[in-house]
Parts: sequence; C-alpha cells; structure tokens
Amino acid sequence: MKKVAIIMGSDSDTPIIRKAVDILDTFGVPYEVHVYSAHRTPVEARDFALGARDAGFGVIIAAAGMAAHLAGAIAANTTLPVIGIPVNSGKLSGVDALLSTVQMPSGIPVATVAVDGGANAALLSIEILAVGDAALAEKLDARRRADHDAVIEKNKTAEQEFNK
Amino acid sequence: MKKVAIIMGSDSDTPIIRKAVDILDTFGVPYEVHVYSAHRTPVEARDFALGARDAGFGVIIAAAGMAAHLAGAIAANTTLPVIGIPVNSGKLSGVDALLSTVQMPSGIPVATVAVDGGANAALLSIEILAVGDAALAEKLDARRRADHDAVIEKNKTAEQEFNK
Amino acid sequence: MKKVAIIMGSDSDTPIIRKAVDILDTFGVPYEVHVYSAHRTPVEARDFALGARDAGFGVIIAAAGMAAHLAGAIAANTTLPVIGIPVNSGKLSGVDALLSTVQMPSGIPVATVAVDGGANAALLSIEILAVGDAALAEKLDARRRADHDAVIEKNKTAEQEFNK
Amino acid sequence: MKKVAIIMGSDSDTPIIRKAVDILDTFGVPYEVHVYSAHRTPVEARDFALGARDAGFGVIIAAAGMAAHLAGAIAANTTLPVIGIPVNSGKLSGVDALLSTVQMPSGIPVATVAVDGGANAALLSIEILAVGDAALAEKLDARRRADHDAVIEKNKTAEQEFNK
Amino acid sequence: MKKVAIIMGSDSDTPIIRKAVDILDTFGVPYEVHVYSAHRTPVEARDFALGARDAGFGVIIAAAGMAAHLAGAIAANTTLPVIGIPVNSGKLSGVDALLSTVQMPSGIPVATVAVDGGANAALLSIEILAVGDAALAEKLDARRRADHDAVIEKNKTAEQEFNK
Amino acid sequence: MKKVAIIMGSDSDTPIIRKAVDILDTFGVPYEVHVYSAHRTPVEARDFALGARDAGFGVIIAAAGMAAHLAGAIAANTTLPVIGIPVNSGKLSGVDALLSTVQMPSGIPVATVAVDGGANAALLSIEILAVGDAALAEKLDARRRADHDAVIEKNKTAEQEFNK
Amino acid sequence: MKKVAIIMGSDSDTPIIRKAVDILDTFGVPYEVHVYSAHRTPVEARDFALGARDAGFGVIIAAAGMAAHLAGAIAANTTLPVIGIPVNSGKLSGVDALLSTVQMPSGIPVATVAVDGGANAALLSIEILAVGDAALAEKLDARRRADHDAVIEKNKTAEQEFNK
Amino acid sequence: MKKVAIIMGSDSDTPIIRKAVDILDTFGVPYEVHVYSAHRTPVEARDFALGARDAGFGVIIAAAGMAAHLAGAIAANTTLPVIGIPVNSGKLSGVDALLSTVQMPSGIPVATVAVDGGANAALLSIEILAVGDAALAEKLDARRRADHDAVIEKNKTAEQEFNK
Repeated sequence: MKKVAIIMGSDSDTPIIRKAVDILDTFGVPYEVHVYSAHRTPVEARDFALGARDAGFGVIIAAAGMAAHLAGAIAANTTLPVIGIPVNSGKLSGVDALLSTVQMPSGIPVATVAVDGGANAALLSIEILAVGDAALAEKLDARRRADHDAVIEKNKTAEQEFNK
Repeated sequence: MKKVAIIMGSDSDTPIIRKAVDILDTFGVPYEVHVYSAHRTPVEARDFALGARDAGFGVIIAAAGMAAHLAGAIAANTTLPVIGIPVNSGKLSGVDALLSTVQMPSGIPVATVAVDGGANAALLSIEILAVGDAALAEKLDARRRADHDAVIEKNKTAEQEFNK
Repeated sequence: MKKVAIIMGSDSDTPIIRKAVDILDTFGVPYEVHVYSAHRTPVEARDFALGARDAGFGVIIAAAGMAAHLAGAIAANTTLPVIGIPVNSGKLSGVDALLSTVQMPSGIPVATVAVDGGANAALLSIEILAVGDAALAEKLDARRRADHDAVIEKNKTAEQEFNK
Repeated sequence: MKKVAIIMGSDSDTPIIRKAVDILDTFGVPYEVHVYSAHRTPVEARDFALGARDAGFGVIIAAAGMAAHLAGAIAANTTLPVIGIPVNSGKLSGVDALLSTVQMPSGIPVATVAVDGGANAALLSIEILAVGDAALAEKLDARRRADHDAVIEKNKTAEQEFNK
Repeated sequence: MKKVAIIMGSDSDTPIIRKAVDILDTFGVPYEVHVYSAHRTPVEARDFALGARDAGFGVIIAAAGMAAHLAGAIAANTTLPVIGIPVNSGKLSGVDALLSTVQMPSGIPVATVAVDGGANAALLSIEILAVGDAALAEKLDARRRADHDAVIEKNKTAEQEFNK
Repeated sequence: MKKVAIIMGSDSDTPIIRKAVDILDTFGVPYEVHVYSAHRTPVEARDFALGARDAGFGVIIAAAGMAAHLAGAIAANTTLPVIGIPVNSGKLSGVDALLSTVQMPSGIPVATVAVDGGANAALLSIEILAVGDAALAEKLDARRRADHDAVIEKNKTAEQEFNK
Repeated sequence: MKKVAIIMGSDSDTPIIRKAVDILDTFGVPYEVHVYSAHRTPVEARDFALGARDAGFGVIIAAAGMAAHLAGAIAANTTLPVIGIPVNSGKLSGVDALLSTVQMPSGIPVATVAVDGGANAALLSIEILAVGDAALAEKLDARRRADHDAVIEKNKTAEQEFNK
Repeated sequence: MKKVAIIMGSDSDTPIIRKAVDILDTFGVPYEVHVYSAHRTPVEARDFALGARDAGFGVIIAAAGMAAHLAGAIAANTTLPVIGIPVNSGKLSGVDALLSTVQMPSGIPVATVAVDGGANAALLSIEILAVGDAALAEKLDARRRADHDAVIEKNKTAEQEFNK
C-alpha cells in the first residue's frame, strides 16, 4: 500500500498531527511523520516533495499555522494530492492559516480541511488511497457505520434524559 | 480509468464547472456532470453519492454557493474523496460558501479548494486518480512543466518591458 | 398542542439545548429531543424530518456547529418551520456555523437565531405555535412582562448604586 | 387565514420585498406591506407591532439594512413570530445588517434569513401559517416538488451539454 | 451644568459603565445611570429619550452588546447627542455590537466609541459639555497633560530598563 | 454660534464631505472645510487642531480612508469633540478605516459614524452645538419630523402599490 | 547603488508593479522586474532569492494574490529585506493575500504594505537603500515636501470651493 | 553601526518589545527603547521621528494596539524605514491594529509584520541594517542556519516518536 506522508511546519503542531496518526494507525495505513518548515528548511521540504512519489507515498498531509505556506510549497513540488491542515496558532483563530492554505492559485491545488482538522486530513488521505483499494474502502465504510452507531447511542442517552 | 463526478448545486454554477470540465477533457479523464441540489433534490444527491463507487467513479467534485451544503451532503453518503468548490454567489464574496464547505466536523472530510476554484478542483481530482496511474501522473507533471514554461515566457516579456 | 422537535448534531451541543428545554418546560410546551447528525446519521435526520408533521410536530429546532448543515438538511425534507441554532464549536467563534445556517438558498428557509441562542430558539418555536393559540400567546406576553419587570428591578438597583 | 405583515425600513428595500410579495401572491396568502423605519417612525413601527396580533396578522416580516434594528424593534413589541431580512445596503455587503438582525439578546427572538433573502422570508412566513393549515402545507409541499422537478430539468440540460 | 445620562441595556454591562462613572465623578460632571433595554423595556427607553433634554441632560451614553440596538433606539427619540458603547458580550468579540451601533442609517447619528470603551464614552460626553464651558474644557486639557506626563514617566522607566 | 470644522484627509473624500456640507448649509451652521492629511501634512493637521477651540470651532469632523489616522491625530491635539468618518477607499470596503477610527485607546475619544457617513457626521455636529442652543435643537427636531413625514409618505406609496 | 528586485507572482500583477516601477524611475534607483511564481517556478524564485545579494540587490519586492506565498518563499531564501505586496485578485478583496503575506512565522520576516500598495512598496525599498545614502534620503525628503505641498494646494482648492 | 529605535505606544506592549530587544542583543545591534504614544505624547513621538536620522538611527520599530496609529505617525515624520508591529490588545484579536498599521495611504509606507510579531520586527530591522553591512548579513545567515538546524533536530525527534 502507498504511504501517507505527514509534514508539520513546526513541532508545536504535534497535537494536531497526533489525531491524524491515531486514525492512520487504526486503519493500518503506513505513514511517515516529518517536521519540515516551508521557510526554515525550504530545501528539505522541497526535496521531500520532489521525491515523495518515488519513495512510495500516495498522499501528503501538511499542517501549518499563520501564513501557512507549507501545503502550497509541498504542492508546488509534486503532483501527488496534498492535504492542507490550517493550524490555529497566532492570534487570528486560524483564519490566516485557512486562507493561506485554501486560496491556492490555479494550477497547484491543495485539498484543505477545517482549522485544526487533523482527523479529517487522515480520513481524506485514506479515502484517496482507497480509490483503488476495495478493502480499505470497506474499512472506511465500517468506520462510518461505527460513527453512525455512536450517534444513535448518544441519541438514546439524550432521549432518556430529555424525553419523558 | 475511474470517472470523475461533477455535481453542481445550481445551474448558475455552470461557469465554474466549465473550468473543471475543460481540464478533465484535456487530460482525457472521463467524467459526468450533474445538477443535484442538497436541498431541492436531496434524494437524488444522496442516491448518487451512495452509488458512485459502484458506478465507477473515483472522485466527486461538488460546487455550491451560500450555505454550501452540497459537498458535505455528498460526503456524508460516500467514502469516495469529495472535493468541494465554494462558489461566490450571494452577497458575501463566497466566504459563506467557503466556511460551509471547509469546516466539516470530524469524520466526514471535504477536500476544499479556493472560492470559485473550478480548475484546481479538476486538477486535484486528477491527482487523486493518478495516485495509482503513472501515465496520468506523467500528464500532470507535463502540465506543471507547461505552466512553468508559461511563467518563464511571461518573465521574458516582463523583463523586456521593464528592464533596460 | 403540536410538539417541538429539538435536534442536536452532536451531544456536545447539550448545554445549548438545555436552555431551550428549560423554556419549553416552563411554558408547558411538549417536545422531543434527539441527536441526529446531518453527516453521520443522514438517514435518521432525513426520516425524522419527513415524518415530523405527521408525528405531531409543529416546529423543529436544529442546533449544530462548524459547517452546520443540520438545520438545512432538516429543512430540505419538511415544510415545517425549522429554527437553526449556530453553535460555537471549533475555532471560529461560531461564525462558520452562523453563515452555514443563515445563508440558505432560495426555496429552503431556516429561521436562524444568534450563535448559541438556545433560549431564543425555544421562544421562537413557542411564538410559532402561539400563532393559532391565544392561551399560549398570553403566556408569551406574560413572560415579556416578567422580563420587563426584571429590567425595571435591575434599573432600581443600578439607580441606587450609582445615582445619589 | 391570518395575514402576513411586511415592513421595510426604507423604500429602497422594495426590490427585496417584491420577491416576498410575489411568493405570497402565488400562495394566495393575504398580506400588507408598510414602510416603517425603526428610527424615523419609531412610534408607527411600535404601534403596528403592538396591534398586529389583534389586527389579524400571524407573522411579521421586517427588512432593513446597515445597523438593521427594525426586526428587533418590531419583535420587542409583539410576541408574534418576526422574520428579519438583513438587507445589503451601505458598504459592508450586508454583514452589518446580518449581525444586527440575528444576534438578538435572549428573550426577543428574530427569525433571520439570508442577506437579501426576500423569497425565503415569505416561504418561512407561509410555513409558520401552515403549521395549523393542512391545505397551505400541501401547497408548500407542491412548491417543493416543483422546485425539485426544476432541478431535475436543469440536470437533464447539463447532462446533455456535458456528458457524451 | 447639564447632566450625562448613562443607559445600559443589561446590568451585565455594569463593569463597562463603572469606567465611565469614575471619569464623570473625577470631572464633577453630574450624571444618572439607568438600566433600560431597547427590547425588554422599549417604552421606558423611549420615554427616557423623549424627556431627556427637558430633564436637563446634555448627552446620553448607551451601552449594549450583541445586536446592540439601544443607542440607536435612544437616538431615534431625541436630538441630543447619543454616544454608543458596543459591548463585548456573546461569542463574536463585540463585532456584532460595533456594527449594530456604528452603521446607523442617515438621519439618526450615534457617536460610537471602541468596543467596551466606557472611559472614552465618558470623556467624549465631557468634551461635548465642554464646548460651551471653558472651565470644563480646561479640566479636559489638564487630564490630557496628566495622561501625557504618565506616558513620559513610563518612558523613563522603560529607558532605564532597556537602554544602557 | 461656534463653527464646525470639516477636515478631509484627501480631496478624493470630497463627495462624502459634500453630504456634510449640504446639511450644515441647510441648518445655517457656520463651517470651514480643509484638506489636511495626518501623514502628508501632520504639522498643519496638528496646528489646526491645537488652535481650533480658540478659532471659534465647537466640533471637528475628520474624514479619512484606509489606515484612517486623521480623526485620531486631530483628537490627540484638542479636547473639542472630534467626529470621525471612516471612508471606503482602498480594497477593504472601509472596514480598515472603520477600525482605525473607532478603536481609539482610552483617553482620546473619536465619535465615529458609519462608513461614508457624511450626513450623520454633520447631524451629530449640529446635535453637539445644539446642546446649549434651543433654537438649533428645534431645527433638529423639525428635520426629524420632516424625515418622519417622508417615511409616512413612502409608506402611503407602498401601501397603494402593494395592498389591494 | 544596490538594485531593487521586483518579483510578481503573475503577469496579471503588472498594474501594481508599474506603480512601483514609476517611483523607482523617478528616484533613479536601479531595479529589475521578474515574473516568478512561488508555485509554478519555485526553483527560479528560490534561485533568484539565493543569489540576490551577490547579484547586487539590496531589497526584494514581491507581489502576489490569493494564498500569496511569494514574498515568504523569497524571504525563506535570503536575508535581504523582502517587501510583500498583497494583491487583490480572486474574490476575497485581498484579505487572503494580506494575511498570507503579513502573518509570517517568527524567523522569516516580510515587510508588508497595504493591499495593492505598489507605490509604498517602492518607497519603502528606497527608504531602506537610503539608510546608508544621504543623497537618496534627501530625495525622499524632497518628495515628502512635494506631497505636502500638493495637499496644501488641494486644501486651497477646497477652501475656495467650500468656505465663503 | 546605525541604531534601531523601538517605540511602544503603551508600556503594556513591553512583552512584545522584549522579544525584539532579545534578538537585537543577540546580534549586538545597538538600540534604544522608548514609550511614546501617538495620541498622548504626539509632540514627543513626532520630535523623536524628526530627529531620528540625525541621532544615528537607521530603522524605527513602532508597536501599538487597537487603532494603532503609532507606526504611521512616526512614518509621517521621517523617511527612515519604519516597521510596525500590530499589537493584540482590546477585544478584536489585533485585527484592528493590523489594518490600522498596514493599510497606509500612498506616500507613507509602514513595513508591517505579524500581530505581536516582535521577533520578526527585530530581524527585519537587522536585515535593513545589513544591506550595507556584510558582517551583519553573515550573522543573519548564521541564525537562519541555526533555525534550520533546530527544525532538523525537531524532525529527528518527531521521526523517532512517530516512525517505527
């Protein structure tokens, strides 16, 4: 199976990344985590992106805050799908990171998820890998069913509390 | 090759969709276009999503404006990767559609591109299909090189105009 | 009397819902509370909406955060009045939920109240039921008078503190 | 049948109001239109609200722009359901009117629709009147079916244009 | 000397009001504080405004949060200058109150100060009273000189800490 | 009678100023118009402010766009009431000018009106002069009555068009 | 004298750049204009930045719109001062470009000017070169005096029009 | 070497300034810190700016919050490069200060860094001084290399934690 690369722009993004990693572990999807900054280690970020397809990666997740250039900088150097997680750091609630990640110019897409959306980034990466992998797709379906059932359980609890 | 589905929430989104279609045509990627509204035709939207994987689709692009629920409504009914295009309709410059598309709750990701980002939605869908398709990946690389060369040409023009 | 349905998209919205429930209890208006997610349990959410009028409901309140599709998804499947409560979850102060709830496209209205406005959602639902119920309308008027009198009391307290 | 009152804060809001009136005409719902400003004719606005229930109104729609106080000023003087239409006038795309209308304090709800949402305000008012009027509810359902069918038609057109 | 009226929409605004009161006390400017809600006690708010000039008031300060209509509602019923303080309550950092207070339509001005700007509201009210009162103007000038001198002192402290 | 000073930061603000001037002319309030930039002519702006009270001015209106410092720069050099008009120039709809004008730090108030609110700035300046001038206050009341009557006329027109 | 480099991310930014070029021409400051995209020509953008100091440049101006990474990408590869011009392209009034340019993480500063602020970018670049160049500083002072005088002229015109 | 001036508008900005001072200390760049308010000590702020070049300063850093006029007021009185730090004070997350600092009108540039960006302001000031100072430029390059190496270290830590 192709691997998922997870790049964070700063080690302060680790809590967001951990949510992604936990999901990938659950699905048994292989991954690698790296800390590469678009600005402090531009060469490493670029070189990783340039070599990612040949290194066996199928998707790259990039998480960064503020003027979040990381996902775009990765996307500029690969045609693998790149998922951007805007991170809420700084003072602006992550709106800066959201706009810096999603408003990419024509030609270089970044698949953007919600601010601090580590879990959805992982799920999206698995959905991408599952396009050609029926077993993985079935695992995603199973998780959806479990999520569904969890809501049904919570509904029962709420009904018992509120409805007499 | 798996197909790309393009769903627009309203036929007023057609200009945005045309940008996506043109790119898919260029790449020879098969696609289908549909108009399904999350609110006016919820059954059709859901049924399409539920059957999309079996119908041979690999990715679904959904474009909608204002309180743009379409991409999320599609994503709730499939584990195929869903790409959301927030459309600038209404009075709020597409900020409403952007937040309605990207801020998905944990469990149901939508790969969001820029406001009115029809071209990038198509390119992202091709990147996803190209994860397991080296020939398609090479076409993406070729387009990147062409984009690169176009900038180099524009650079020459600008240099001739401005630098004496 | 027709019942009020209160749907929350996540059990984390319970504190907002409790404010609504307390008011409905005070007015003796019958209600049911459910947890249905537009994305995780789309079938249950839709089925509830489709059957709500026949089940004796007169109004549906839907509370959700982030890309808050719940009220719109309910509204798409009923012509009962649907009241949307944008919930402040995530990082964006509820602005995402507000725009996702209020900016509904033409044809499918959602009666939106303030961010985290559980109390006003309940009062609005009672106002709707009171359109054809003079006794209930009188109860609303009485509450208004009580609210008025509470301000008058606070005014007296402030006058005693500040005006000498 | 109870009547719908439509109050606009300025006659410049007439185009928005016309969208509401057209829908009420289609449904055969009786209505009255008035121009009352919360700030320039506060007495008339208040007196209208105070007398509205006895005058046979079931719902009041109020449209205003900028620091849009009209809906709130009406709501402060009646316990009829009040629907607020934030109007895009001034320079701020209607965001000022949206927040001034929807962010009502606890106790005085305003059912807010989208910026310039004249059509949805009318539909919401009809939904409210239809809570106790099965024939009117059926008309709403019929319109929904027509809206649905219109999308299906547009889908066919799009399919013919794009899918070969 | 004419009096300053201070109206707060809710007693939760008391901390903001206290900043204003302290300044008026310092200047020996007479004032009255009241709690009148634009929505819960619209009659009292209006009656106060209608009678304010004859009651010896020269300026009215109104503080309110969320869809802050209080200052506008007061201004609609008097031609005394009305100063609006947008209060940061609710979830939106006071942006809702700011726009609801400052974006008044033509004809009914509200002199708006910063979010939670109780001190500046008081100073502005004194500036207004001082237009025809040289002694009061001199007191304002004296306070400015004192503010100036306080900065000079802080500058000395900073210079001693940082400049060696 | 004391005069009103109107300072614009750029002659491109003239259309906004003209609305203020027209109103002052109607009321027979003496005024002077100047173009002084907080940044390009800081000395002239300051000197005007420093001398304004002795020169017979009672209020200063300052209009500026973008990072609109003019009103604050004037206010820093006088204890006369200063009214700020945020002007919609640049690309940000006047939000930059609004925040730059209204969010003044404690000690230096600016009475801010709506974006491009030239008319209300003039009316507010007259309200301030009318605090000690019963005849001028009566003129303001008369204008309010005229504004009221104009709405009543527009109401009649709307009633004739819409209500049958 | 060191040269100023002007990099635009797209040739659609040319009108903004022309404002900068005109000013540099006036001051006789040598410059070069290039079109390099952070995403389409990342190698050229980086190589230019890496070699800029040795090539005789003293400042680099970078203009880009939407998720404007260009200035940051340049700044990541040089310790020359980099001036960022956020360009208003796309649908979001340049707010996306502003936040993407100014909210740089610690370590890699970008000197950001206003949205579409081509003229100020040029002036700032000249101010930087003038730190060690008294003759250039004098030219800047002369321009300031000319700007001052132009305002004085406009003031005279306004005084003649408005003050009688 | 020319000195860096650091002006804060209020001593509450000291924590932001300390980040700048620490970096200047590390680089051995001489500096002076002052507290001058654009509004409370306009004369001192202006006089400092007017004399700064002759006093041996090469760059001025100005930090202020809310309607942050300080950097602009300094820039209006010098042609030295002025760096503005928007400070997050008040209730609006520093957005007010950001727009008040960056949206300067044509003719008077302010080099704006991120909200609370004390460190980058210092680095930018050093970059400006280093334009004509190869040794200082080398120190900047060394710090970049150290920043780079720190990321590489963090990458190793992350790889050890996450990649097995």
